[in-house]
Amino acid sequence: MPRSLFLPHIEAMSGYVPGEQPRGGTLIKLNTNENPYPPSPRALTALVAAAGEGLKRYPDPLGTVLRTAVARKHGVDPSMVLAGNGSDDLLTIVTRAFVGPGDVAVYPEPSYILYQTLLEIQNARAAVASFRDDWTLDADAFATVARGARLVFLANPNSPSGTTLSPAQVAAIAARLDCPLVVDEAYADFAETDCVALVREYPHVIITRSFSKGYGLAGLRLGYLIARAEVVEGLTKVKDSYNCDALALAAGAAALDDQPYLATTRARILATRRRLADALPALGPAVPASAANFVWWPLGAAAEPTYRTLKDRGILVRLMRYPGRPDGLRITVGTDDEIDQLLAELRQIMT
Amino acid sequence: MPRSLFLPHIEAMSGYVPGEQPRGGTLIKLNTNENPYPPSPRALTALVAAAGEGLKRYPDPLGTVLRTAVARKHGVDPSMVLAGNGSDDLLTIVTRAFVGPGDVAVYPEPSYILYQTLLEIQNARAAVASFRDDWTLDADAFATVARGARLVFLANPNSPSGTTLSPAQVAAIAARLDCPLVVDEAYADFAETDCVALVREYPHVIITRSFSKGYGLAGLRLGYLIARAEVVEGLTKVKDSYNCDALALAAGAAALDDQPYLATTRARILATRRRLADALPALGPAVPASAANFVWWPLGAAAEPTYRTLKDRGILVRLMRYPGRPDGLRITVGTDDEIDQLLAELRQIMT
Repeated sequence: MPRSLFLPHIEAMSGYVPGEQPRGGTLIKLNTNENPYPPSPRALTALVAAAGEGLKRYPDPLGTVLRTAVARKHGVDPSMVLAGNGSDDLLTIVTRAFVGPGDVAVYPEPSYILYQTLLEIQNARAAVASFRDDWTLDADAFATVARGARLVFLANPNSPSGTTLSPAQVAAIAARLDCPLVVDEAYADFAETDCVALVREYPHVIITRSFSKGYGLAGLRLGYLIARAEVVEGLTKVKDSYNCDALALAAGAAALDDQPYLATTRARILATRRRLADALPALGPAVPASAANFVWWPLGAAAEPTYRTLKDRGILVRLMRYPGRPDGLRITVGTDDEIDQLLAELRQIMT
Repeated sequence: MPRSLFLPHIEAMSGYVPGEQPRGGTLIKLNTNENPYPPSPRALTALVAAAGEGLKRYPDPLGTVLRTAVARKHGVDPSMVLAGNGSDDLLTIVTRAFVGPGDVAVYPEPSYILYQTLLEIQNARAAVASFRDDWTLDADAFATVARGARLVFLANPNSPSGTTLSPAQVAAIAARLDCPLVVDEAYADFAETDCVALVREYPHVIITRSFSKGYGLAGLRLGYLIARAEVVEGLTKVKDSYNCDALALAAGAAALDDQPYLATTRARILATRRRLADALPALGPAVPASAANFVWWPLGAAAEPTYRTLKDRGILVRLMRYPGRPDGLRITVGTDDEIDQLLAELRQIMT
């Protein structure tokens, strides 16, 4: 039978299960941290302009137009930028480049569940360092867990907590590591700080970014990575030659060049986030201070029934369970209207 | 230094070098087997329709719209279809699912150079079985090389030769293998036969297809794979959750549903291919019978100077070198006009 032809560790694994993506319907979707606002009109214009006969040609393997736009935004050299088919593609490339079978990679827990899956595919092992109750990390304890590891993942801002470590805290961790440190900044567009500057100081720091959250382009699959040029060069050997399509490269560059649009949608999301975070403590526990476009509501035993009742009423949030912690709901910051409806339902459910 | 943080086999490898992709200019590009005709207008309409606010949402992880269109075209169940970010993505997924470090995988030589690169990334070993001089394979000899292998790649039609094995010949190979056989049908849209029907008979046969050649959508990055449902299920664990973007899924489904357009452009390319293949023997060696959108011209010592002179004159073909064989030029079948210009230049160069 064909299944037995799979490598044993692939056969044994269960695979990553992404958040529910219901098609059609009128559900209020607050479960996978998509942006409630449309992408930049300039990005859509660039898409339509690229949707022509030129698609018969292969795209630029290195995505020069995107690298240049990233370089402009972050003040780095284009040689320090690698484009990816979503930041998941970049996390996959990094894992394949640094972590072999039986090797150990480290991430804090709870965090992005995909890290575990990527290590399973690679037949590698995960070592985890727990966040403190206030969602900070002890740099020394973390470094102890990471001793001998080949790679460290650090989602910052973190999911599901939404919390963020300061660049100084991340630098303290970087300084203690002798393996690559991937700072997964998928949500950094909603934070006040980021760690791009650390790449100058630490040759083993790698930043990953996404167009799925801040730029509202989850359907397009695009991300980028910033690292030392020699790291980018090595990672390029592992990526598929044409990993990013011509449309995504054009739209991504246009979106990056439209920072005023990002600032506008970001400001709206941050205002709604504040309103949501202020309202929830009247209905249950407080949420940790979020630097992302979602909040983490550690409801404990009430999490699952609340998730189910909300879903019955047409509102989808993400129920998340981590061993040794209270269950919780990760709630994406939608539009003001969507959050008003969520709060109205919660007031009925919780009181 | 960061480079030493890479896995040793990644550090040691040199990486796949795709064909030249010059930007801009007026070069006649006959080097990477792109389609000279634009994609289906229905595909472009689908693209523009999808290029809107909906992109803020993640795409369907399984690409149901594309799977359904593939199922319709090939008369298979949608559960037998996996969508990929180009067929290279699918070749990568298959390699990671079946071939571990130190394992052996097999392909005939000369063939698609990427197979070697994929095995290098996986730290696996390649065993090669040479094509006979007439570009056929001895099924028994091939099976002997493949004994104990974890995976076999068979590009059919093959590159650089353009030649194809009949389904019966491929079946003879499949019957002798006890590992997965990937029949890479990137060029099958230009052939008279294909091996999709073998999937019913052989549970270890996997077919890969591309939208980059027949459908003229190289810039979009889309491919698909047909295999038994249980094979597709296992491979799904290895792919990135959202490996295909919403635009590509929509455009690919529309392109598949526009078979009359494919038939029209295909007929033009086949007519031009015949004209090119008929003209070349007056200028050098004959080309093997091509079932693809290119021909292989084994010029030997004349290959490199001819490549250079053509490039100087604004025509780009692919110079390819394989140990133990004469060097050759792989020439993409362009428009009639492009091939007329190529032949005019060649008449000046070669006579």
